[in-house]
Amino acid sequence: MNNALVKQLWQEIDKLPIIDPHTHIRPRHSTALSIAEILSYHYYTELVNATEFQPGGFPTDDPRRFTKTLLEKLSIISNTVQYDWLLSLAQNLYGISRQDWAPDNWASLFDRAQQVIDQPSYPQDVIRKSNIKRVFLTNAYNEDLAGVDTSFYVPCLRVDPFMDYASSPKEWASLGLFAGTDGRTVAGYKAGLDKAFARFAELGMAYAAFSSPPNLVTRYVAEEDAARVLAKAVTGAALSAEEKGLWAAYGMNQVAERCRRYGRPFHLMIGVNRTTYAQGVPSGTDLFDSVNSMKGYDYLLNEYADVTFPTSVLSDTSGLELTAAAWIRHNVWPSGHWWYSNQPTDIARELERRLNAVPYRKLIGYYSDAYYLEFVAPKFRMYKFELAVALANRIERSQIHPNMAPLSVESALQLAEDVLINNVKRVYKLA
Amino acid sequence: MNNALVKQLWQEIDKLPIIDPHTHIRPRHSTALSIAEILSYHYYTELVNATEFQPGGFPTDDPRRFTKTLLEKLSIISNTVQYDWLLSLAQNLYGISRQDWAPDNWASLFDRAQQVIDQPSYPQDVIRKSNIKRVFLTNAYNEDLAGVDTSFYVPCLRVDPFMDYASSPKEWASLGLFAGTDGRTVAGYKAGLDKAFARFAELGMAYAAFSSPPNLVTRYVAEEDAARVLAKAVTGAALSAEEKGLWAAYGMNQVAERCRRYGRPFHLMIGVNRTTYAQGVPSGTDLFDSVNSMKGYDYLLNEYADVTFPTSVLSDTSGLELTAAAWIRHNVWPSGHWWYSNQPTDIARELERRLNAVPYRKLIGYYSDAYYLEFVAPKFRMYKFELAVALANRIERSQIHPNMAPLSVESALQLAEDVLINNVKRVYKLA
Amino acid sequence: MNNALVKQLWQEIDKLPIIDPHTHIRPRHSTALSIAEILSYHYYTELVNATEFQPGGFPTDDPRRFTKTLLEKLSIISNTVQYDWLLSLAQNLYGISRQDWAPDNWASLFDRAQQVIDQPSYPQDVIRKSNIKRVFLTNAYNEDLAGVDTSFYVPCLRVDPFMDYASSPKEWASLGLFAGTDGRTVAGYKAGLDKAFARFAELGMAYAAFSSPPNLVTRYVAEEDAARVLAKAVTGAALSAEEKGLWAAYGMNQVAERCRRYGRPFHLMIGVNRTTYAQGVPSGTDLFDSVNSMKGYDYLLNEYADVTFPTSVLSDTSGLELTAAAWIRHNVWPSGHWWYSNQPTDIARELERRLNAVPYRKLIGYYSDAYYLEFVAPKFRMYKFELAVALANRIERSQIHPNMAPLSVESALQLAEDVLINNVKRVYKLA
Repeated sequence: MNNALVKQLWQEIDKLPIIDPHTHIRPRHSTALSIAEILSYHYYTELVNATEFQPGGFPTDDPRRFTKTLLEKLSIISNTVQYDWLLSLAQNLYGISRQDWAPDNWASLFDRAQQVIDQPSYPQDVIRKSNIKRVFLTNAYNEDLAGVDTSFYVPCLRVDPFMDYASSPKEWASLGLFAGTDGRTVAGYKAGLDKAFARFAELGMAYAAFSSPPNLVTRYVAEEDAARVLAKAVTGAALSAEEKGLWAAYGMNQVAERCRRYGRPFHLMIGVNRTTYAQGVPSGTDLFDSVNSMKGYDYLLNEYADVTFPTSVLSDTSGLELTAAAWIRHNVWPSGHWWYSNQPTDIARELERRLNAVPYRKLIGYYSDAYYLEFVAPKFRMYKFELAVALANRIERSQIHPNMAPLSVESALQLAEDVLINNVKRVYKLA
Repeated sequence: MNNALVKQLWQEIDKLPIIDPHTHIRPRHSTALSIAEILSYHYYTELVNATEFQPGGFPTDDPRRFTKTLLEKLSIISNTVQYDWLLSLAQNLYGISRQDWAPDNWASLFDRAQQVIDQPSYPQDVIRKSNIKRVFLTNAYNEDLAGVDTSFYVPCLRVDPFMDYASSPKEWASLGLFAGTDGRTVAGYKAGLDKAFARFAELGMAYAAFSSPPNLVTRYVAEEDAARVLAKAVTGAALSAEEKGLWAAYGMNQVAERCRRYGRPFHLMIGVNRTTYAQGVPSGTDLFDSVNSMKGYDYLLNEYADVTFPTSVLSDTSGLELTAAAWIRHNVWPSGHWWYSNQPTDIARELERRLNAVPYRKLIGYYSDAYYLEFVAPKFRMYKFELAVALANRIERSQIHPNMAPLSVESALQLAEDVLINNVKRVYKLA
Repeated sequence: MNNALVKQLWQEIDKLPIIDPHTHIRPRHSTALSIAEILSYHYYTELVNATEFQPGGFPTDDPRRFTKTLLEKLSIISNTVQYDWLLSLAQNLYGISRQDWAPDNWASLFDRAQQVIDQPSYPQDVIRKSNIKRVFLTNAYNEDLAGVDTSFYVPCLRVDPFMDYASSPKEWASLGLFAGTDGRTVAGYKAGLDKAFARFAELGMAYAAFSSPPNLVTRYVAEEDAARVLAKAVTGAALSAEEKGLWAAYGMNQVAERCRRYGRPFHLMIGVNRTTYAQGVPSGTDLFDSVNSMKGYDYLLNEYADVTFPTSVLSDTSGLELTAAAWIRHNVWPSGHWWYSNQPTDIARELERRLNAVPYRKLIGYYSDAYYLEFVAPKFRMYKFELAVALANRIERSQIHPNMAPLSVESALQLAEDVLINNVKRVYKLA
């Protein structure tokens, strides 16, 4: 690693504003109300719980007590990148230095952060200091978005409820209520989906998104088969794995058809096993399966050739499969580094693969997946550093590589801008 | 990376002549007739198509128009290693410099290349400049090889048609015609295979080769079971997945038996899913499955213990599995870096694994998989650079590693010669 | 790589004493009786056999002839890390230098080693020179451990025989004899397991260990179902795959219950395919499957939440899956780098992943898996070098990383001590 060159590149890349194309930020509660909310990000509770099991969970309803409790344990995760996000943001936003993070100091940290947080300009200060230009949301179809500034917050429709719909009776009522139809029929389901898309198109949605289980299989599903499965479920009968799979494939097609109709991408987030760990903290119970084939997506990607599919994979074992899909398929764009793959080791590998073999205009570099605006910058910094390392290596290799011409710092920075800004704007049609 | 050491090693490794143990070169059309044929290599059409979808395909029947069309788009893949192959060969063979590659310049590039290509000595010039000593072919059993100089072009028998034979009626006629027997019977099939091997042994074949789908399962198959499956297919009935698998296993055994009889290796190329991408350009429709087990080859490798199996894997997830197989099995030799794994990230990892844990005398370093001689050198250069990096790292580590003795540049270069030249000669019995 | 920094760190890390938490050392034959026993470690016979097939095997019953035979071939594996272990230990223990390793020299090497080995203090000399403080064993439930110094040798109960018990008639007699019960009944099986745990708890066992096949599925199994399966097997009927799987799941639960009762960890070693290579040398016939899901362990890990599961994976494709499991699950501790993953390429990647995302207090750095004490030091040195490289990279990155504070050499060394010593002591409750 050429440290001077990495540092030079990083400093330039860091000047790029942030467009964050996937988050879970709630616009009306976009920043933390106390440092306890920062510390309650599941990474901290789950990593601490993974090291010293907290059978009763954490006292999340009492911010000060929660902060005290967590700080007592925090040093046990001090080697992790997630810890680095935290200390980095606390330094930059609250002026809390690394040496201040001691259990005994909890009250002081809480209060110092609170002073900053209580400023009326705090959310805008976070945005300004982090140089964030746009933040994409992950929205329920029936979520109240009144008053949300969609020139900054870009709505995205989460379609997960439509995929396991047949086995989720509470969704029938919810969707029926939303669409004013009978959610227990395929007609009602389709009307609900129509209304959701119409509403989100109106709101300027960037894309529809689905986080799928491993080994989903897409295929043609006849409407009468979907209707039969839903009707069976409505009688109260349990669905078989085959019937659930049929409905998921039906749901994928229904969503893709509407993405086509509205000219919006369908963002695939492939491979999560939900509620796997029984003793987990909230949001800390999901894992993935290293045995995950993207082959099941062939039908969807071929059939909806005119829909763009930004795609994230959760398992490292799907990394080259995604690179290869993006390398030949015109409608697959590799998107970011998701969750368990969102750490330097796997970012570095996938980034290098993509830069070597996927045309640069298709690369969506990064998204933060954050729940609060405070985390956007440190997570992007982690990625930008790996990007600087990858580009520095490329520059160094280019100087002696028999097939390459020397890569200039300017060209390397242009590449960084493309994957972080220009491609995101183009694929999501941002103004 | 110690740049000076990498450069020094690369320059020495580059002096080694090239023996290319797997290509798709056609001896009677071994070099391009125009730069359009260079540009029509599927990597260029597929990468461009993957970035800007070409619904009508490319005008491949009009070399000048095709060149113009492709050049308009070429810059969108300028970050890829495949682009580097192209610019490297154009520089070295046609004297076209990197800055000349502009869309407006297409006619000039075409004409300048044509001037070189039209020299009667062009094919020999490519061979000489590239320092190529031997090129292995991939031949159909009934391919006309009359007049081919087998002291340079080494025939290899492609056995893919024998594996899905039972479900390929057109092969029955073709093989029957070739062998003068009834291709609709097992006896005819075996006679056809016998004749193919006899013919290719006569031609000095290096090996038989099969590019297999993921998760092939080899096993004992009784002749009457194979006969039953073929007879069913001959009636026009569709075969089940089980029956197709039975036939593939039968075909593997039949080929392996003849490899044994003729003392020739059986080259396995594991894990391709054919015609996966519906909108792909020609040769740009195949992918792989990251879920691929080599366990299915246990029967074959054990039963044909006296046959050598040079083996390539398409998926990165099979990389350590191949290293481990080569580490303990006497008849598995890791061979090259295939297709989607043929880029620096995955070459570097697999090369390092193999150098650490597979005895060096079993390593078949690289093959180009090229369709024209022009691509042999730039593809080998890509590999040789990664080899230089790996050896430089090894030298550097050896100087401070508690278990190692300092590795000399001479010993490192000897290792390079072994994996690139000596092992290839030995396993394929080249004079 | 910053060579000076790596060297500095390695030298400090090398001063740490060795606690080796998994070996196959036999306390009464803990060191080799001749250099032939060193050379008969399966890595040497298997790597040589893999390169030059030895149809008749090696003459292992004649130490001098075996040594001569192996030395004739040894240079063909000179690139491997296993070769480096050998030359390193021979240098350090027998004063045999690298240049002395020539086939003609075999008798001299044999005799020089023998002189050292024949010293009465030899085992203690190996321990002292290697700075070994504790060595964990892998014991059969009925193994004679009388006179073993358990303040140095820590017994661990190998539970493999309990997992395929239903299909292993010879185990019924063996366990029955051990426990004084009828091993053909579930009651007898449970009594045998009870006695095994009682005995090993008495002996101060560190943990129970199981090396599992790929894709094991754990689940609730009713006692009557287990009884039915065993009763069927006792009649001589062959068990179906489903029945074998049921028994394995039952066995896992039975072992885990006793781990809970005795407050001892259950060490999982996931993913080996036994007796795969038909022509292999002894202990050189096993491989793994890259298609291996850890999902099958969900039931076990959730149900036995109060049991700690140190976990090793054999396949590289399970590496991030293990990191993620350890990242959120409180009872999964990543343990070492097993067998085919025990080489620098995969150690480096997994080590980096774990240091980035698993709290450091859960990391069990390394175990040697050795059969003789002589191999403990060179194998640990291999790991310690990769650890030094990882920590040096971390130090270098920390100096320019936007989220990190400069990591001091002292802190890095503290991390090394934690993963090599402190965590091992804590999880296995060593005095």
